[in-house]
Amino acid sequence: MTYCVGLLLERGLVFMSDTRTNAGVDNISTFRKAFTWEQEDDRLITILTSGNLGTSQAVISLLEERLKKPEKRAPSILQAPTMFRVAQIVGETLRETIRSSRPKSAADSTSFNATFILGGQIKGMEPKLFLIYPEGNFVEAGPDTPFFQAGETKYGRPILLRAFRQDMEFSDAIKLLMVSFDSTIKSNLSVGPPLDLLVHERDQFTPRHAQRVEQDDPVFTKIADAWSSALIQAFDLLPDSFMENGPQDKAAE
Amino acid sequence: MTYCVGLLLERGLVFMSDTRTNAGVDNISTFRKAFTWEQEDDRLITILTSGNLGTSQAVISLLEERLKKPEKRAPSILQAPTMFRVAQIVGETLRETIRSSRPKSAADSTSFNATFILGGQIKGMEPKLFLIYPEGNFVEAGPDTPFFQAGETKYGRPILLRAFRQDMEFSDAIKLLMVSFDSTIKSNLSVGPPLDLLVHERDQFTPRHAQRVEQDDPVFTKIADAWSSALIQAFDLLPDSFMENGPQDKAAE
Repeated sequence: MTYCVGLLLERGLVFMSDTRTNAGVDNISTFRKAFTWEQEDDRLITILTSGNLGTSQAVISLLEERLKKPEKRAPSILQAPTMFRVAQIVGETLRETIRSSRPKSAADSTSFNATFILGGQIKGMEPKLFLIYPEGNFVEAGPDTPFFQAGETKYGRPILLRAFRQDMEFSDAIKLLMVSFDSTIKSNLSVGPPLDLLVHERDQFTPRHAQRVEQDDPVFTKIADAWSSALIQAFDLLPDSFMENGPQDKAAE
Repeated sequence: MTYCVGLLLERGLVFMSDTRTNAGVDNISTFRKAFTWEQEDDRLITILTSGNLGTSQAVISLLEERLKKPEKRAPSILQAPTMFRVAQIVGETLRETIRSSRPKSAADSTSFNATFILGGQIKGMEPKLFLIYPEGNFVEAGPDTPFFQAGETKYGRPILLRAFRQDMEFSDAIKLLMVSFDSTIKSNLSVGPPLDLLVHERDQFTPRHAQRVEQDDPVFTKIADAWSSALIQAFDLLPDSFMENGPQDKAAE
């Protein structure tokens, strides 16, 4: 499994992905699932991959290859005129890759599916964030749904739903992602550190911040611990529920 | 889908289940998924059901029927000498019910599976909590794993992992369940109120507290709202992450 999130903020985009891949619980490896392309003063594009690792790597390699061989250059994500067209190229490449590895017999149930989060900005246009499905189609984030998750999305979703706002500072958005990832890592073995963090600032075409957050990273550890204590404190402040506390109410029965 | 939780506390057992059932998003109904049997001054038993509603209702009806017809009375959950034996009876009934509805052809993929949470106490013995699988086998809660969830378990799991302690008061345990259910209800349409709440106090053989919590219940609403604000406050108290806030650090680059 995998967990990755892309946030569409007013001031830009923030991405985080884990690096754990597993084929069974006894076959765990670390692979990068975040890929960035930058073209000086023109565009900055990031893809987070979730799903079958072979499919994900093949798509990334195909996208890379088209950039390197001039004769294959079109359609290239560095030439596409809009982020919408970039999403189409990535979606088509993803769909074709899945189609070509699809099992020949129905008895082979291996899934080659993958889902991508794509975000970026081309000069003179708005930053965009897309969720690309294995079928090659995609949806775009907007004010109503300003973030996308892929992979093991459920454990880390409630805090995103409650605390994410598009006018957040980058540092708050990073805190939020760390809390969401910490909840997921604590609940599911198949999601694990290190985490890749990437910040695109609006109208900047090199990443504002890129970092690999290791398991024992002091900031991550501090935020995870502080979150656990803050949750328990918050919990203690909640209004009382139906039953009063303590043995005295037992005596009152 | 369904969400239900059983907690094993030092002072007894607390159960909560939702009541939403759905066959597709356009076919939603309300059904009770919590069932209690009490035998005066001898035993108190609760089952929470999750999974196929037909299977769940058939198992509950079979268990009930055995209580009413003396000649079918053994094996009855009100006669079984231990909670372990009660779990065996429930597990066997569940497995046989699933087996008898299993589709005849592989092309029919309907799942008749169900998973139950069973808890209770028989006089002179400890309160026990079990998770019963569709295969009919089961696991028992203990200090390492003092609660069980069934159904749509992921959204509400991080808060349980972080805040549940076996020495909690009942009222705190109820608050905790409300927060866990609120997180799930906010994230997944297939889990919905009203919620059934049930408290077994150690060595008491009638429920200490039984309540149906409606969507607009003032206590539930208050706790859900207070939790949202408390989370956001807790979030603001977190130590800063890698990037400082505000535009001043942009100027410093």
